[in-house]
This record gives sequence, C-alpha cells and structure tokens, in this order.
Amino acid sequence: MVHKAPQVSDPTLGRLSLYRRLASRLVAQSLTHVFSHELAESTGASAAQVRRDLMLAGVTGSQRLGYDLEALVEALDVLLEGEGLQRVALVGVGNLGRAILPYYAGSRRHLEIAAAFDVDPTKVGRVIAGCRVHGLATLEQVIRELAITIAILAVPAPSAQALTERLVAAGVRGIQNFAPVRLKVPHGVHVEDQDLTMSLDKVAYYAQRASAHGAQGEEDLP
Amino acid sequence: MVHKAPQVSDPTLGRLSLYRRLASRLVAQSLTHVFSHELAESTGASAAQVRRDLMLAGVTGSQRLGYDLEALVEALDVLLEGEGLQRVALVGVGNLGRAILPYYAGSRRHLEIAAAFDVDPTKVGRVIAGCRVHGLATLEQVIRELAITIAILAVPAPSAQALTERLVAAGVRGIQNFAPVRLKVPHGVHVEDQDLTMSLDKVAYYAQRASAHGAQGEEDLP
Repeated sequence: MVHKAPQVSDPTLGRLSLYRRLASRLVAQSLTHVFSHELAESTGASAAQVRRDLMLAGVTGSQRLGYDLEALVEALDVLLEGEGLQRVALVGVGNLGRAILPYYAGSRRHLEIAAAFDVDPTKVGRVIAGCRVHGLATLEQVIRELAITIAILAVPAPSAQALTERLVAAGVRGIQNFAPVRLKVPHGVHVEDQDLTMSLDKVAYYAQRASAHGAQGEEDLP
Repeated sequence: MVHKAPQVSDPTLGRLSLYRRLASRLVAQSLTHVFSHELAESTGASAAQVRRDLMLAGVTGSQRLGYDLEALVEALDVLLEGEGLQRVALVGVGNLGRAILPYYAGSRRHLEIAAAFDVDPTKVGRVIAGCRVHGLATLEQVIRELAITIAILAVPAPSAQALTERLVAAGVRGIQNFAPVRLKVPHGVHVEDQDLTMSLDKVAYYAQRASAHGAQGEEDLP
C-alpha cells in the first residue's frame, strides 16, 4: 500500500515545520508534554489554529497535559516526510553548498543526504560532512541507484536549468533551489526557491525606504 | 534632500534583483548591452514585463542595441539599495552565520557587512571574512556608531525575538531572518524570513506526495 499524506496548504506546512522544530527542541530538553498555546507562541498562530493544524497530523492533546512530545514529533515526521526514508542529493559543492551540507546533515530521521555532485574534478571522490562527492557524468546513474527524490541545487545560475532537467529525468521530485534563476519543471515536481541574495536585496530596499522616511519625518518636526 | 525610492511591489522587487544579477554577470563577461528578451529568459517574465519593470528604475533601452549594461546595473543599485552606503550586521556567527558571511561579503557596491556579533566569548575579537566579531554587550553601541540599518539574524530560535527588539531599538530597519521563528517587529521594520529548514521540509513533503502518486499511477497500469 502506498502511503498518501493528506493535502496541506503551503502556510499550514510552514507552521507544521515550525511546530516540529519547537517540539524537537523541547524533547532535547527532556520535556514530555507541550500545550497548544506554547506551540502557538513561536509561530504567531493562535492556540486554536495550532490544534486544527495538528489534527491534520492525526494527533490530539489532553486538556490536562497537552500534547505528548515524542508522539507529536513522530506524527509530524510522518506527515512531512512520509513513512520511509527519502534520499537527498546536494548538487554543487561550492561555498554555499559546502556551508549548508553540515547544517542539514543528520538533522532529520526520514531524510538522508545521500550524495553530492560537483563539476570540479578536484572535489570528486572527496567526502564532505559524511557525504561522497560524485562527478556530473554519473549524476543520473547515482540518483537512480540510490533512489534519490530530492535535490538541493546550489550551482551557478547558468547551469541550473540544464541540471534540473537531468535531475527530474532521473527521478527527482522536489528541488530546493539556491540558484538565482526561475527553474522550469514539469507538473508534479516541486521547487522551493531559496534565493539568499534576492532576499537580502529586498531587506536592503525596504530598510533604505524606512530610513529615508524616518529622516523625512524628522525634517518635518518643528 | 532625502532620496526616496519609488514604491515597488514585492514580486517586482524580486525580478529587479534577478535582472541586476544577470546584468552584473554580463558586465563581468565584458558585454556592453542586453536586450529585454534576454533579461526575460532567466526570470520567467515577458520582454514587455522586463521593459515595464526597468522603467521603474528610470532606464530605457534603445531598439537597436538594447540596454546599456553599466547604466542598468548602476540604476538598479540605486533603486534597490539607495544612493549611499547601507551597513549590515551579521548577528550570530555559528555554522550558518560563518557560512553565509563570505557568500555575502563584498558582493554589493552599496551594502557593507560592517560588524558581526556573537554570544560566544571565544569568537569575540576575531575577524571572519574581513569582519570583526563583537560581543552582545556592545550590540547597541556598535550598531549606532556604525549607523547599521540592516541585520542578518542567524541565531537559535529562543534568542531571536529579544535580539530583534534590541536591533530595532538601536536603529535597524531591515532583517534577514534565518532563525526558525516568526519575529514581531514594529511598523516600518521589514523582515524577510529565510528558513532553510522549513523550505527543505516543504520540498520533502511535496516530493513524498509526488513519489507516492507516481507509484500509485504505475500500479494502475494494466
């Protein structure tokens, strides 16, 4: 039987991800239970919203004790990542790729960074954060052999689209895209753009406007 | 006189950021001009959309040659970052902070990473990617002295809100937030959430659904 996750909206997914992280942190602090209003606090949601969200994961708390933390984390793991293990490839082991690899490695029970790829022959064969770096010539072969379904794409913009097409043809169904380019993918493949530069550009734009308005406001003072 | 940037919508800002990056890349390749349809390609916008967007930056191309690349980059610099220099602080020099610092450092003409902060006394006083690490005790003082208006927040979730309040009180108007928590900020302060873990969670969720549906589909074959 194929496990089918319930359909969840994108903002709800975001909150479920935050609940899981908070719950994991509390487990690490040896706590056993959490109330919905405690989960609500860090996510900006209401306690009622938290309870509705968690019903999607099939967990209900007790009024007296709240939610059992270990059961909560396990249910969110299954909802977010499925019952089995999903394998991830890091494509591009440059500055950014090398930086995020240890950040991700070993952080999830149901996700495994199984392989890395780079065009640079001096990197091929090396092991970075427990992960072997392969050349691009064997991309499809390694993706298929390891049944990798997720790619973290950290390559320069000009090579991102062509690599995406190779990854999708080899079976990848989800891409976290750090390359500053809009990827074209077929229906059924999900891309999350994670454009650090664009996001800093936006912050700089709004900060500049706010500072200019602030100064303007001061000039208006008597 | 205070420079006032025109008001630009968030998706437009994103495209302007992509055009600037592409244009900078072409300048580095010693090219002098670019056509709107070439800029359109990497952003998923139409050539007409590109021309409308670039009119916001006050640049128009010639039908025969396209846009002058150096003028285009300069106009986008001014639109996105203002005429003067904006100073940026990195708050949190852990794995992620150390990783993104060299990625950002020296990448913009109008943005300067002017200081870093960390709670760890063994990091204070060190210079990382050309940037001095200060202790948190001097946060407000350094932010004010250097007139820093932008912060990159790469601290653990539990300390993110309190640090945000200190940064805003000291004059910060824009925050790129890598901490997995929704920050509460006053009106006029802009936050861009850059939650790498949440984004990978979303990719894993959708990839799992796509793979499950794919398998389901195959089972339906005769």
